[in-house]
Parts: sequence; C-alpha cells; structure tokens
Amino acid sequence: MEGRSTTTSPSSHSQILFEVLERVRPTAVDRKRLQEVSGAILSRIRHLASERGLALEAMLAGSAARGTWLAGDHDLDIFLALPESSDLGLGLEVARLVSPHYEERYAEHAYVHARIDDFDVDLVPCYLLQEATALKSAVDRTPFHTRYVASKISGLEEEVLLLKQFMKGTEVYGSELKTGGFSGYLAELLILRYSSFVSTLREASSWRPGAIIDLEGHCARPHQEPLVVVDPVDPKRNVAAALTLDKMLQFSAASRCFLRDPGLAYFFPPEHRPISDEMLHRQIRDRGSCMIMVDFQAPPVVEDVLYPQLRKAEEAAMSLLEKNDFRLLRSDVGSSDGRAYLLFELEVWKLPAVHRRLGPPVWEEEHLSRFVAAHPEALSGPYIARGRAAVEIPRKYTSARDLLERELPNLSLGKHLAASVRQGYIIYVGLELAKKRDPEFRTFLARYLMARLRIG
Amino acid sequence: MEGRSTTTSPSSHSQILFEVLERVRPTAVDRKRLQEVSGAILSRIRHLASERGLALEAMLAGSAARGTWLAGDHDLDIFLALPESSDLGLGLEVARLVSPHYEERYAEHAYVHARIDDFDVDLVPCYLLQEATALKSAVDRTPFHTRYVASKISGLEEEVLLLKQFMKGTEVYGSELKTGGFSGYLAELLILRYSSFVSTLREASSWRPGAIIDLEGHCARPHQEPLVVVDPVDPKRNVAAALTLDKMLQFSAASRCFLRDPGLAYFFPPEHRPISDEMLHRQIRDRGSCMIMVDFQAPPVVEDVLYPQLRKAEEAAMSLLEKNDFRLLRSDVGSSDGRAYLLFELEVWKLPAVHRRLGPPVWEEEHLSRFVAAHPEALSGPYIARGRAAVEIPRKYTSARDLLERELPNLSLGKHLAASVRQGYIIYVGLELAKKRDPEFRTFLARYLMARLRIG
Repeated sequence: MEGRSTTTSPSSHSQILFEVLERVRPTAVDRKRLQEVSGAILSRIRHLASERGLALEAMLAGSAARGTWLAGDHDLDIFLALPESSDLGLGLEVARLVSPHYEERYAEHAYVHARIDDFDVDLVPCYLLQEATALKSAVDRTPFHTRYVASKISGLEEEVLLLKQFMKGTEVYGSELKTGGFSGYLAELLILRYSSFVSTLREASSWRPGAIIDLEGHCARPHQEPLVVVDPVDPKRNVAAALTLDKMLQFSAASRCFLRDPGLAYFFPPEHRPISDEMLHRQIRDRGSCMIMVDFQAPPVVEDVLYPQLRKAEEAAMSLLEKNDFRLLRSDVGSSDGRAYLLFELEVWKLPAVHRRLGPPVWEEEHLSRFVAAHPEALSGPYIARGRAAVEIPRKYTSARDLLERELPNLSLGKHLAASVRQGYIIYVGLELAKKRDPEFRTFLARYLMARLRIG
Repeated sequence: MEGRSTTTSPSSHSQILFEVLERVRPTAVDRKRLQEVSGAILSRIRHLASERGLALEAMLAGSAARGTWLAGDHDLDIFLALPESSDLGLGLEVARLVSPHYEERYAEHAYVHARIDDFDVDLVPCYLLQEATALKSAVDRTPFHTRYVASKISGLEEEVLLLKQFMKGTEVYGSELKTGGFSGYLAELLILRYSSFVSTLREASSWRPGAIIDLEGHCARPHQEPLVVVDPVDPKRNVAAALTLDKMLQFSAASRCFLRDPGLAYFFPPEHRPISDEMLHRQIRDRGSCMIMVDFQAPPVVEDVLYPQLRKAEEAAMSLLEKNDFRLLRSDVGSSDGRAYLLFELEVWKLPAVHRRLGPPVWEEEHLSRFVAAHPEALSGPYIARGRAAVEIPRKYTSARDLLERELPNLSLGKHLAASVRQGYIIYVGLELAKKRDPEFRTFLARYLMARLRIG
C-alpha cells in the first residue's frame, strides 16, 4: 500500500470532473433542439386529444424533463395521463398517431416506441393520480418521480451527470433486469441525498449489504434487498429493488478506487471489442477449461422478460451439471442477433464410468436391504465406508456435453425459453465457439474472458 | 422382501454349523500334539529358570490355553512371568535359549518369536501381578484374561470356534491395527455374554455405534469407541478399543444376513486370488478412473507400527489431493514383499490451468486491496461473485501424479515412513500397476477392485 495516497485529492478530481462535464454536458444547441422536438410532440398529442374530446394530460418525463440527460442521449419519455375512469386504450390510440415510424411494445402495459427526428421516443399511457401510493400500474408512478426530482434538483444537474457517467463507465448503470444496476432516478436521489458526486462516492465507499437510504425519513418497511432507497413518493417501494448485490458492491468498490486514484477511465473506459479468432484460440488454450455453450433462437420478448428466464435456465443447468458431479468455473448468459445463449465454463467436464454412491448407515436394516438390492450389478461393493454402505456403479453421463444435450429440454425453463428450446438448439464446445461470427456475441465473449473490474 | 424368511431356521443353521465344526474343531491328535509341544516348552523354560535361580512362572496363554484354537492354527503364546521387582531382560534371556530358531520382536516390550516343531511360538516376558488393574505393560494383562476365560468357558468352546471362524470368513477377525477387527479374547467374551454363536449373531444384528457390553456390571467409564466391551479383569479398559466402526458394522450386517439366509460361505468364502493382467486391464478400462499408487520400501517395523503410519500417510495424501481440487473415489494401503504402498483411485486427476480463487467480501476494504494486489496477473478478474471478490489464476498442479510426485516428501508422515520415502519412491499410474508382479500385491488389488461384502 506504500506510495498510495488514501486521502482525496480535490485538485486532480476537479480537473477530471471538468473534463468529464465538457463531454457529457448537453450544449445550448442540444437543449434547444430537445425542447423543440419534445414541444412539438406534446403539442401534437394535445391536439389529437382535444380532437377526440379526451381529458388527456401529456407530459415530458425522465431525464429530459429534469435536465439530467447526458449529451448524446436522444431518448424522450412522454406520458399520456388519463383520468382514472378512462380506458388506457384511448391513450394508446393517440400515441399510435403521433408518428408514422412506430412500433408497439409491452412492459406492464402496451406503449408506443416511435422514432421522431433522431430521437427515440417512448409514448406511455398512464393514469392521472393524486397520490403515488395508490397506483394502478408502475408507470403511473413516473410523473410523481419527475415532479419530485424536478422540484429539488435545480443546481445539482451536473452532479447527476457526473454520477450517471461514472455509473456507465463502471458498468453499473441501468435498472433493466439484464443489467441489474442503478436507474437514472436512483442516481438523482443519491445526489439529492448527498449533494454532490464526490460525496455520493464517499458515502458509497462504505456501503455494505443492508444499507438504507431514506430521504424523507419515511421509516421504510423492512426489505430484503442489499440496498434500500426508500422512494420519497411511495414509502413502501424500494427504488433500488432491481439493483443486484454485485452491482451495488461494484459501484461501492469503484467509488473507493476512484477517490484514492482518480482517472478519466472510470468514466470513459476503453470499449470492449469483439474477440478475434486468434485471441479466442489463445484464451481457450491458456485456460485449459472447457467452454460449453447452448445456443438457440431468442424468443420474441423484451429483454426484461428474456433475461430472468435466461438466468433461471442458467441456474437450472448449473444444478444439473453439479448434481452429475461436473464442476463449474463460471457461467454467463447473453443474447444478440436474434439468438440467446447460455455459456458454461467447466473445470471438470469428463468423468470416469465408475461412480460411488453412498447408501444408508449400515445399522438401518431396512434401508440397507433396499439399497443393496437396488444395485445387484455394482462394479464394486457393497462395502462399508465410515459407517455407511457404498457401491460403485456406472454413471449415466460421463460427458457434460452429452448431459446438456440430452437433459436440457427436461429442465424447468421459463415459458418463452422452453418454447424456443423445443424448436432446437446448438451446442458449441471449446473452439467450436469460433463458428459464431456475430460481433455482439464476440464482444460478449471478450467481456467474459477478460472480465476485470476496478475494485481494489 | 417377499419370499425371504426373516425368522431363523434352526435346522439349516445346525446342519451348517455341524459342517463348520467338523472342519475347525481340533482332533484328539491335534490336542495331544499341542499339549506335548507346549508341555515340552514350559518344562524347558522352567529348567532354564531354575538353573538361573529365577522366580519365573511359565504359563501357556491365548486360545491354546483355553481350548478355543481353530484346527490348523499352530500358534502358541507362552508367558514368562517375573516378580515385579525383577528385570524383564532376565525373562528375555531365558526366552532366547528356548530354541535356536528364533528372532526378537518388539511390541510394547521385546519378546521372542520361535519356530518350534511346526508351531509359531511367542515367548513373552511379563510381570507377575496380583491385580490386572495395576499393570506395568499391556502384556501383563494376558495371564488374567487367560484365567478369566479358562474359568468360565468350559462347555462353550465350540461356540467360540464357530464365532471365530465366522469372523475369519467375514474378514473381521484380528485385532492387529492392520485389520482393526475382533480379537480372540473379544470373541470369547461375546460367547460368555450371549451363551452361543447364534445368540451372539442375533445380538450383534442390532448393534449401533455406541453399543456397550459389560459382563461384570462394572459401570464402565465413558468411551469414544463405536463398541465398548468392558474388560472383566480391568474395568477401565475397552476390549474392543481396536475395533473400527466399519469392522463392527461389517460383523453386525453379516450376522443379520447369515441368520436370514445361512450358508457355509460365511465361514469359508472363496479365496481372493492374485488379479491377472487381463482382469486388471479390463477393470481399469471399465472403471475409467485413474489409479495412482505410491510404492516404496517397507520400513523394518512390525505391521502394528507400519499400518498406522500408512493410514496417516493415506489421509495426508488425500487432503493434499483434495486441497488441490482433485477428487478421490477410494483409497487403500498395503504392504508385501518388502514394499509398502498407498493406492489412490481418482475421479478427477487432470484439471485445467485456470483456477478460480475467491477473495474477501467486497466491503472489506483492506482485505480486498491486499487480495487484488496479490493477483496482478490474473487470467480473469478481479470480478465480483455473490458479494465476494474473485480472480482466475493459473493453478500450480494440473495433474494429480505431478502433485504426489513433488509434494509427497513434504507431507507429515510417520517417522519410519518418512525415512523410507526419503530413500525414494515409485509412482505407478493406471496400467503401469501391472509392472508389479508380487502375488500378494496382486491379491490386494483384486480385493480392492472386487470389494463385495455380504451386508444386506
């Protein structure tokens, strides 16, 4: 630890933060453009609503509404709020007419995703409520979040930008289930709570599982999640519910490291690039492990539906492998180019034919008789091992590949995944992985193989 | 369990027991010969003692003295008892003069083993005591055992013969440390306690670890051993102290099986024969596991010294293998033809270069920094796995053979074994085992590979 400063150096911080802000702060031109585009969309919606005699309130939400969007982001969240007595379908009808370039998507309810100028616009029907605690659906909460943050964030926008970019650079940004990281709203709440980017990092440095942040002193009900941030507009809700333990700790450790030894790379790390054939060969040779990948058509569902099913399949396949005495080093799941995949890296992937099965304690006469009778053709045994009967019998699967190939369809998979797997799947082993040329997959592999976090 | 009688069938028992007794009961000629030989030896000792003016009492001990020796056994235990004030060395001097064909051996004290006619004779100096509870050495207890059994066994000798032969046939006879089974004295006590061979088996059928047998109602002090048989002549002592859990349960299970379905094979099982090259090849192929054997010169010590050291070495090598992530199926130790050997059968004997090392929880800042700093050149990592830091680094040993070859001399071995191993050792892997031609070793291997007990 010699020669490593453990105190914060404000001067180097400020220089770096200045440089970051230069890159992530929207310019005056950006702001004007966003205002023009969003203003035009809101007008169009209001016009469409009044044509239909709808009591519909159109509002800009998300980071664009709060002045906390990062330069280069061209995302607009626009909410179409209807009275509680209305049919959300009426809002959806309006949303469909905003732009000819749209597709319908589905989260908790249907919404419209449109491409307008060079902006990605989500047009989300919701209910107009008086209290965020009496929601009909999760999206109804968003307008409350926007109002809460907008009313307090003024003057702290740049701190939010720094924090969001730091979270992006350290790969903990994004509350979708694929990532399990921090949402934009959560980043904003942290800044509201701790007043600045650096203070937030300082506080996060000492987080442990079970940390609680309660801005409005709501005395939250107990939560099981590793980090609990009580929602100021809905005290029963944990804003960090989707944050995984590992992403929470990754942010905490990166915060410590940055404060000790700041650098631009925390915000703008080198991009992961698709792994080359040559590097893949070298990695496989150097590791000496066995990579086995199950690859199948991605079911036609959004990532928030797909990824929990992939993780569930990963867990199920892991227990299958371990129950059959194979030994796992690591695993991951991904999807790209219309395919989804489960990757397993095995430390033990071939086993001998002979397999030892332990039976009951020898003094349990009935159990023992059944056990011995059940194995009349043992390779060795029955014999006694530390008080228990044992036999050595041929094992069903001596190869992990065969096991996965044969048993995968019998695993309890999520609904959509089960349907996809029934349609067929490919298993790649070791160097066969090079057959997949998809660059996004190659990047996934590069990230897997060269996983390296700034944590200590 | 249908069609299987669970009650004892006395008629088939008695027929079998009759046949057994025909084979193991010493004939009148045997008895006469034993009396003549032992009588001559006792006379010779008494003569030698009186020549030297020694107050030495010579006595026949063991099964020969109790009329419980099995036909074909030609072992005599003769004790040379001296007053407590004497030097045992004087007894040893006498013992050396009994026969020219002798060698000195060493258990707790030195004794003489002589070949006299076709008998193996142990001539054991000991002290003449009034109370078995005030011993100077374990051998001093033997005369008390002989007197106790001799005074009570009359009429039950044939039951003892049946029990001893049953124990031999089921491979649980012999209290030497190599076997860890039942001593002759223990067999005799069981018959004294339960009156007959069949009753003993019936009682043993329901033994569990912790069973206590206390013939004289001594209220023994607590023991840790799986079976406690309070010594009638020395209540603090457990006669079954050397009996292992597995041999106890092997006897118990064999007793149940015999009572349910009696057969001569329990007493006279087919002999294990040396394994042929062909069978060894076939077994190794069918099992698919990896047999690794460490073979070295047997140190010049008796088996009761050698075997505990071999077992200790076996345990040490097992933990070494498992600590290095290899996986053991089974192991055994043996010695023959001047060699000693440790046999390991491995389920996993090759591992990939890459090895995952788990570090501290990520919130333990100091530990984490040390952990990360200690692995600057990880293949992958550091990354976070369920809250803990992890790295993937090259492993030191990817082959179990290399590990044993290199680390064996560094294991904590017993004194004599360590000396032997320092002189050098050979490692045989798989089919290389066929290089050893020693028939006793080949029999050891046959027993290992074709282990099959009658237990259920």
